[in-house]
Amino acid sequence: MSTVPQSVLVDGIGTLVTNDPELGEGPLGEIHDAALAIDTGHVAWCGPRGAAPGTDARVDAAGRCVIPGFVDSHSHVVFAGDRSNEFGARMSGRPYEAGGIRTTVAATRAATDTELSDTAASLVREAHAQGTTTLEIKSGYGLTVADEERLLRTAARFTEEVTFLGAHIVAPEYAGDPQGYADLVTGAMLDACAPHARWIDVFCEDGAFDAETARRVLQAGQRRGLAPRVHGNQLGPGPGVRVAVECGAASVDHCTYLSDADVSALAESAAEGPGTVATLLPGVDFSTRQPYPDARALLDAGACVALASDCNPGSCFTSSVAFCIAMAVREMRMSPEEALWAATAGGARALRRSDVGHLAPGARADLTLLAAPNPIYLAYRPGVPQVAAVWKDGELVSGNP
Amino acid sequence: MSTVPQSVLVDGIGTLVTNDPELGEGPLGEIHDAALAIDTGHVAWCGPRGAAPGTDARVDAAGRCVIPGFVDSHSHVVFAGDRSNEFGARMSGRPYEAGGIRTTVAATRAATDTELSDTAASLVREAHAQGTTTLEIKSGYGLTVADEERLLRTAARFTEEVTFLGAHIVAPEYAGDPQGYADLVTGAMLDACAPHARWIDVFCEDGAFDAETARRVLQAGQRRGLAPRVHGNQLGPGPGVRVAVECGAASVDHCTYLSDADVSALAESAAEGPGTVATLLPGVDFSTRQPYPDARALLDAGACVALASDCNPGSCFTSSVAFCIAMAVREMRMSPEEALWAATAGGARALRRSDVGHLAPGARADLTLLAAPNPIYLAYRPGVPQVAAVWKDGELVSGNP
Ligand SMILES: [Zn+2]
Ligand SMILES: [Zn+2]
Repeated sequence: MSTVPQSVLVDGIGTLVTNDPELGEGPLGEIHDAALAIDTGHVAWCGPRGAAPGTDARVDAAGRCVIPGFVDSHSHVVFAGDRSNEFGARMSGRPYEAGGIRTTVAATRAATDTELSDTAASLVREAHAQGTTTLEIKSGYGLTVADEERLLRTAARFTEEVTFLGAHIVAPEYAGDPQGYADLVTGAMLDACAPHARWIDVFCEDGAFDAETARRVLQAGQRRGLAPRVHGNQLGPGPGVRVAVECGAASVDHCTYLSDADVSALAESAAEGPGTVATLLPGVDFSTRQPYPDARALLDAGACVALASDCNPGSCFTSSVAFCIAMAVREMRMSPEEALWAATAGGARALRRSDVGHLAPGARADLTLLAAPNPIYLAYRPGVPQVAAVWKDGELVSGNP
Repeated sequence: MSTVPQSVLVDGIGTLVTNDPELGEGPLGEIHDAALAIDTGHVAWCGPRGAAPGTDARVDAAGRCVIPGFVDSHSHVVFAGDRSNEFGARMSGRPYEAGGIRTTVAATRAATDTELSDTAASLVREAHAQGTTTLEIKSGYGLTVADEERLLRTAARFTEEVTFLGAHIVAPEYAGDPQGYADLVTGAMLDACAPHARWIDVFCEDGAFDAETARRVLQAGQRRGLAPRVHGNQLGPGPGVRVAVECGAASVDHCTYLSDADVSALAESAAEGPGTVATLLPGVDFSTRQPYPDARALLDAGACVALASDCNPGSCFTSSVAFCIAMAVREMRMSPEEALWAATAGGARALRRSDVGHLAPGARADLTLLAAPNPIYLAYRPGVPQVAAVWKDGELVSGNP
């Protein structure tokens, strides 16, 4: 990274999305004709442009829009192997031998550390270039003690938001013995992995782990200081949401199939405290041709909704949060404002972070200058790259303002 | 544009899509471990990399994929005004005063030549950067003799594929008198516009022009040497396809609502000669939340299908053909191969062009180097920019190989 001046003013912002209703208009706290001052990695000031403080340097937004960097709270970008042909076959209705998570597990185990790290670095760079400034990364393609630890060490080179997902699927060596594998995950694997992660995650779904085992995994992680999050309700109705809320998980992710009781539980959880966020992953529903989750039911009930990419080589290989926003607007009837909030402040909530996802003074200077005058363009121009520049911790990490 | 060496070899291509089944495997004529030689703006040679001829310069594709540049046969990129708020209201189910094509007509009439040209230049540059090497551009936001001519002169600065669409909607000055407006379109407006266009187009739909008037417009254009194309069957069933096939139009665009007879007519037309292509515009169906056209019925019947963007500020403001491919695969059940063919060779057919849309020797050197090993990635990684470099007429117009 290049050295940066201590303080920079981003001036002439057409629309500044702060996500702080006390700082500006509407739920996104929008300020028009705005400026924002960055100092030593944080937002020092924001407001109407005339009132800006003096800074060492100045960038001209020329009427364009500034938003908080996307907080992508769900990804699996440490892996090896290519599954494009599996995707092509699935979308064309052609049969395909092999495929599935196990294919990626085999390729990942066979890959060198350098290969894994190079792929992850390339995807993280790509995410930055598309406006993502916080990216959670999970393990889950190793499924042995050594491989899971290796994936977490790799993930930790790129993010603070590292999630131990040994309980992704039952490892092939334990086929037919999910309890035996859960013993490993909560025993030797957790011992090796806990020091490298912030989060413990489990895939609570038919074909992966049942409710009781999911609880056992999450509680074991919590005893080692990891905070819980859950994959659930992706492929059908199930206990994922219930387990997540009961265990105080920060987020339950997918939520494609929810009962009324699930929606109520998530809404109550949001009302009561930090709560369990419903993280929706429309890229997965796109790439697997599943129905989309009922975001309106969640929002109208008062649940907290986040949007994330789930970038992974099998069920969804997009790293574009803007694409997820466009799909959320088209398919899930979120308004453009709700979708942007969910992909920034919602993602921050799903990671229990108060320093990212908004641009009030004191927040991290994680922000994206769009090549557009307002944030509606993210859904209005689907597929079109619209990121002009991205700052993370006050440093320009992509683009050219 | 920079000066280029006379001949360049693009070497080390992982997958080369030629769209010529005689040159390679499958319907896309794929050659693996390939090379392609460019000489004075054309494809001089392509084949397995070991057999490549000598050239002045060499570019290393490093295993990545090369495809023909996208042929986007439908756009309206000469306009003024911003309709993002109308889009936001529509997608959120909020009422919105004004809006519609007339809003763009008013803003376009009020804009200076420079403003129109700057907007078009920016969108054409953006299209190039996303892999489009041929872009049709229509008038249709002027609706006076002087303004339609002005739009066509502007379009002609950017493309050879200029379409006179005076018959987009009935001009506001002729409200309630579509025949009076059609008299103008086929009279003084055609006189002024024909010298600047290759194509004549008409929006044949309830609320725009009926079948009889559409025929009258197309025939008047044909008498002035313009070749016909049609907007039809976008908002409901109607006579658009029938009129297009009867008049020998190169393409009928939208085709969201087709009868069995329409599908048969398009299939017969494709079997008989150059025929009428069914050009599908999934970006419009995305951005207006309409159903998607039944591409499978068309393909299975033997019709020729193209995909295009319809980039315009109202019903679809995407310029991303890759996004259209991804939507065609997800929503219209086209295979990734069918969708890529439709966006390249299909677009060329819709413009009656044999020099673009494929990469056989003699074709124009219009090609895109993807940041991916195969063309499935265009649908597999929706929303992610995957264009590494774009050559048009043998010159690098975007990216960095
Ligand atoms: Zn996941
Ligand atoms: Zn159109």
